[in-house]
Amino acid sequence: MSTEVTRFDYQQMLQWADDCLQQSGASGEIARNVAFYLLEGDLLGYSTHGLIRLLNNCQWLQRGDSLSKGQPLTLSERAAVAHWDAQHLPGPYVVPQAIEAAVTMAKNAGTGTIVIRRSQHIAALASYLSLATEQGMVVSLMCSTPGQRAVAPFGSKQAVFSPNPFAVGVPSSTTPLLLDMSFSMTAAGKVRQAKANGEKLPYQALVTADGEWTDDPATFFAEPASAIAPLGGEKLGYKGYGLTLYSEILTMALSQYGRRQGSDDGDANSVWVQVIDPSAFGEQKAFIEQVDDLINDCRGAAPISAQQPVRIPGERGLGLKQQQLKSGLEYSDATLKVLRRCSEFTGVAMPGSKA
Amino acid sequence: MSTEVTRFDYQQMLQWADDCLQQSGASGEIARNVAFYLLEGDLLGYSTHGLIRLLNNCQWLQRGDSLSKGQPLTLSERAAVAHWDAQHLPGPYVVPQAIEAAVTMAKNAGTGTIVIRRSQHIAALASYLSLATEQGMVVSLMCSTPGQRAVAPFGSKQAVFSPNPFAVGVPSSTTPLLLDMSFSMTAAGKVRQAKANGEKLPYQALVTADGEWTDDPATFFAEPASAIAPLGGEKLGYKGYGLTLYSEILTMALSQYGRRQGSDDGDANSVWVQVIDPSAFGEQKAFIEQVDDLINDCRGAAPISAQQPVRIPGERGLGLKQQQLKSGLEYSDATLKVLRRCSEFTGVAMPGSKA
Repeated sequence: MSTEVTRFDYQQMLQWADDCLQQSGASGEIARNVAFYLLEGDLLGYSTHGLIRLLNNCQWLQRGDSLSKGQPLTLSERAAVAHWDAQHLPGPYVVPQAIEAAVTMAKNAGTGTIVIRRSQHIAALASYLSLATEQGMVVSLMCSTPGQRAVAPFGSKQAVFSPNPFAVGVPSSTTPLLLDMSFSMTAAGKVRQAKANGEKLPYQALVTADGEWTDDPATFFAEPASAIAPLGGEKLGYKGYGLTLYSEILTMALSQYGRRQGSDDGDANSVWVQVIDPSAFGEQKAFIEQVDDLINDCRGAAPISAQQPVRIPGERGLGLKQQQLKSGLEYSDATLKVLRRCSEFTGVAMPGSKA
Repeated sequence: MSTEVTRFDYQQMLQWADDCLQQSGASGEIARNVAFYLLEGDLLGYSTHGLIRLLNNCQWLQRGDSLSKGQPLTLSERAAVAHWDAQHLPGPYVVPQAIEAAVTMAKNAGTGTIVIRRSQHIAALASYLSLATEQGMVVSLMCSTPGQRAVAPFGSKQAVFSPNPFAVGVPSSTTPLLLDMSFSMTAAGKVRQAKANGEKLPYQALVTADGEWTDDPATFFAEPASAIAPLGGEKLGYKGYGLTLYSEILTMALSQYGRRQGSDDGDANSVWVQVIDPSAFGEQKAFIEQVDDLINDCRGAAPISAQQPVRIPGERGLGLKQQQLKSGLEYSDATLKVLRRCSEFTGVAMPGSKA
């Protein structure tokens, strides 16, 4: 496994990604948003959902699989909810708008919920959370992929679900809590990454077509393929299975964009966005104190290993972001290979690396 | 382990529990609700949160730890949310009211969310879900216990959190999906049950004060005590840890009733109730079809073991309910012992068992 990284200036990479997207047909506003949120994924350490997905985004725009201009349609709404059809607009353009609309609803009604059908791939959910937490709001995001079957129900060896992520942002008196996880034992991107690096997975996260548990990522690309097991594994996988069903109901079923509608739509997502205004329930200051109490209780809990104190969700990512903004974005050789292909595809020269 | 069960007529046990509660000071309406929802827990198979908790409920009423009459106070509200102070009214009296109020909000605003502080113990979350699903609504429930520390953050050997349950109800064209799970590797009630039965836990769900993983329930009652690990265990416990934080933020932090306020309040809960009206997003019929599609995909997925087809959350519980309504409620000897103590405590004679 290569641990070499090459560093690039953040502003230069942002401009390059923006240029690639505009070259592929995106409007200025769409290009700006997609570039910004893909880079935000890298900054926070979600490298499988960062700029490595720029090439896909450019290809989708050129092919017409992503809509290059326009706005989501509102299909229905009430005081605290709306249903949007994104018409395959890029996720990083649609989701920030949905969060802003949900924040406005939450200020009036206490919560705001937007479900979105036909959003093109929305990349790293963690990238969007600070849009809400900076306004003192709690936000939860979920998405699923009607065109993807990768995760098996508990007790099954056959993939039914997509590897659905769940993200939560919560303001505190210091840095926000940022949570971004899948309800399965691993993400499809991590299986791809392990295979590309010639590595095993760090634990048995897959069930083969023969019903055997394995850590071999090659089985996931075999025919018949292995399936990712739900969170909880062999004993407690009924919990991850339940959470995955919950996620697909709040995304696909509410947006009425499930596998019967979107099975040919590639990486396009059904999305759930919910914003909660804590000040609807009492003083905002008292809410923040409660969050601080929880964080402090966790920080103070005795670690199993003295060398590994308890971590707070988001603190590592936010630290990585500060470091990369200062010293440069870090890309592995495997990611650089994809970025160079994107440069060729779009004809836009990549910036040079930092010294 | 004793697998003996004794059977009792449902109506007779309902009347007995109602009489015990009234004898302990509960108003007629409170007694009726607490008796009904404790029995609902038993019917659905949640025996650690069923009538075995009747004695506690009677004791709390007699001691004044539960409020025996009255209504929750509304502390704040907006179109789609409310914050209630239950003033220690019994959970099985407060939660159904909260679901009904949330259903009304959801019909108007698309969703309805009630957070509740100082609800006395709310027993099995699964018991309440059909109140919403029978009206075509999706419901999610969470609760936490400010007076309880049983679950460690990921990487810690020290308990910080309560073993917070999460429940979801979703209507389908047949029986509803009913999910009720904890975000930890096991529930405190199951550790107690294993210890009482002289059994080990079925897997290593606990971390001792020395930082060792164990399946020995006795360690949980030792001094210093072991802690329950979050869902995901040694490798993926950061997921269960994140979900537990999420749960305590939406219950304790939003209701502003956390460990600084409620550490001496025993089993009293902070509660999250959210109802979603699927018809706010599109045709109800199309939503139900989406849920049916998901259920059918799961049922059709090839099982690892041909003898164990994939199960749908709730179907086993609902089957058990039908069976017990017909053949009688089934109680183990350990539960019967607690019921007899409740009979002595209240002076209300228990019904005889079924032949």
